[in-house]
Amino acid sequence: MKIVTLLTDFGDFYPGVMKGVILSLAPEAVIVDIYHNVEPQNVLQGAFLLYNSYRFFRNGVHVAVVDPGVGTERRAIAVKTKNHVFISPDNGISYPAASEDGIEGIYEVDVSISELVGELSSTFHGRDVFAPAAAMAVRGELSKYCKKIEDLKKFDLFDYEIKDDKIFCKVVFIDRFGNLVTNLRAEDVKDARGFYVKGREFPLVKAYAEVKLGETLSIIGSFRTLELSVRNGSAAEILNIKRGDIEIELEVIR
Amino acid sequence: MKIVTLLTDFGDFYPGVMKGVILSLAPEAVIVDIYHNVEPQNVLQGAFLLYNSYRFFRNGVHVAVVDPGVGTERRAIAVKTKNHVFISPDNGISYPAASEDGIEGIYEVDVSISELVGELSSTFHGRDVFAPAAAMAVRGELSKYCKKIEDLKKFDLFDYEIKDDKIFCKVVFIDRFGNLVTNLRAEDVKDARGFYVKGREFPLVKAYAEVKLGETLSIIGSFRTLELSVRNGSAAEILNIKRGDIEIELEVIR
Amino acid sequence: MKIVTLLTDFGDFYPGVMKGVILSLAPEAVIVDIYHNVEPQNVLQGAFLLYNSYRFFRNGVHVAVVDPGVGTERRAIAVKTKNHVFISPDNGISYPAASEDGIEGIYEVDVSISELVGELSSTFHGRDVFAPAAAMAVRGELSKYCKKIEDLKKFDLFDYEIKDDKIFCKVVFIDRFGNLVTNLRAEDVKDARGFYVKGREFPLVKAYAEVKLGETLSIIGSFRTLELSVRNGSAAEILNIKRGDIEIELEVIR
Repeated sequence: MKIVTLLTDFGDFYPGVMKGVILSLAPEAVIVDIYHNVEPQNVLQGAFLLYNSYRFFRNGVHVAVVDPGVGTERRAIAVKTKNHVFISPDNGISYPAASEDGIEGIYEVDVSISELVGELSSTFHGRDVFAPAAAMAVRGELSKYCKKIEDLKKFDLFDYEIKDDKIFCKVVFIDRFGNLVTNLRAEDVKDARGFYVKGREFPLVKAYAEVKLGETLSIIGSFRTLELSVRNGSAAEILNIKRGDIEIELEVIR
Repeated sequence: MKIVTLLTDFGDFYPGVMKGVILSLAPEAVIVDIYHNVEPQNVLQGAFLLYNSYRFFRNGVHVAVVDPGVGTERRAIAVKTKNHVFISPDNGISYPAASEDGIEGIYEVDVSISELVGELSSTFHGRDVFAPAAAMAVRGELSKYCKKIEDLKKFDLFDYEIKDDKIFCKVVFIDRFGNLVTNLRAEDVKDARGFYVKGREFPLVKAYAEVKLGETLSIIGSFRTLELSVRNGSAAEILNIKRGDIEIELEVIR
Repeated sequence: MKIVTLLTDFGDFYPGVMKGVILSLAPEAVIVDIYHNVEPQNVLQGAFLLYNSYRFFRNGVHVAVVDPGVGTERRAIAVKTKNHVFISPDNGISYPAASEDGIEGIYEVDVSISELVGELSSTFHGRDVFAPAAAMAVRGELSKYCKKIEDLKKFDLFDYEIKDDKIFCKVVFIDRFGNLVTNLRAEDVKDARGFYVKGREFPLVKAYAEVKLGETLSIIGSFRTLELSVRNGSAAEILNIKRGDIEIELEVIR
């Protein structure tokens, strides 16, 4: 298991430093950036994107750091699953992915692992704790710095409410095209012909090309959840939604 | 041939998922990001940047996905050239690069290749079709999912007009410094001393340092085409040009 | 020594081309992006970020290109240190890192090295000079294109002034969270309880969690220098500071 993926809210500079730490300790690691622009402190978004990327890797060590609790007593954990290892703060970010793959063991990573880096800041455990943990996982030596624990923080990605013709779900991710990716699963929109959102109609289609350029639509996207879109345009702009983790109300059109 | 390059308008998250697919199917692949911030649906820009990057690789599998037609009947193609393989939607994006290197065969990639991923969305063929195609190309097994075809969509990067002292060309790419990269080739500006654009003078120089800080200039840039610049400033700002694929009028100063 | 790191102000496209050059000449290179969004022409920021990243690599070839002098007579240099090789324009950008690791030799890289690329533009020496130099360093053949020189441009990252209770230092880097990273070293703030900046109080804490959400704080960050922050918010916004290389005045609270 040589692949290490990185998913953070760190932006562009800090991950390069993490890569230095990982490659210095485990030169055989193949590092893949998943995303470093998770909205700051948006654990839901991090968990959603991890859940929707890890399974496209046959196996790997997946480091996910969205960490509002850095510098407090929150634990750093490693979760061994059937095919993967997840390394993250214990705030639920890796739970949806790990539990889907099948959890086989939960471990607390001791901050003393930072001795491998030679630094322990109170602001950047991505470098001082999570990166060396990933390297040790690649080398099969993470147990030296771990103790087995019994539980971890859980997190439900699909916590939404359906009441008759109203659905209260969340926009979880806004992609570069302005598509609004929700957490509403395909199986819960089966009999809909479309949705009203903020007074606008979003007909449910199977391909963007079913509507004209500039028109609104909804579609089951690559996350297998509902997305609100504008063909060759931006739904985020039209609905004035600027970040994820926003609750929205959909009225189902049947 | 182990190098796989990626050029898309997907922004930062989706390419990480494509890498998972590629590395799961072809662990020996060395993946290089060229650019993921092609302006949404700007096929000209994608074609221009691919043309100006592929030749700096000795050989490789080049995946270029700017794909306004995703989910319609547009074909996915692989083009074998003298030293490279190009994988893209059949919208002309790979034509300038492929034809320069010398086309040896054109193939349609069947969407059934998505069985290697286990998903076929109608919105993200980068993951479900183009990524597995790249992996199969690395493994030399792409022919299993291909049939030979006779033609592909063509595209002319250098489609501009010169009428006496007026040149009507295009801004194709705006780089991070605000340099406006046009598609006007060096050989067509040989006897110019500079240009007027929107009433401003852009003297043609051989190095930025020939003008003072903050002054406008034009220069043959690294794309071997004309660029409009401001020394240590932004021509995009001064001329209020915000995206590529914009026609501009140059008046030649002799 | 197979690792090549890249730190530039080039944004996203140009580094992909540099990777093509490097991998074509030295296929065994493992390339790591440190950062490509250094503020345009901000040599101080580039030098600061290089200094704070190189040491997390056990060894490597570090290419740092922030190059306001491209196309002029400024030299391209390679600096061999105890564990690393630094390749950059001779504008001081690599000096703080190189001198810390221990300089063993300084070399001027001849632009004729661009023959390995087959291009020599006047705007993109990252591709035409620095990338082939990195590849040759990986292959141990850089000396073919170098001559030993005696000196290089020096640069002091920690050039600030302390006068009684006033400190005049610089904001060097603004990270994605809006943290203002200064060049004021930990050892110079030992007896402070906090700072006034532009009339606001920034108590000096050991962890973000010591203040409430939305409150200002100061902290010794992962660069071992003072950072001004807002817990789960943006100090850059609150103080209206938009780029690095800005002098700020701190009043020490004891």
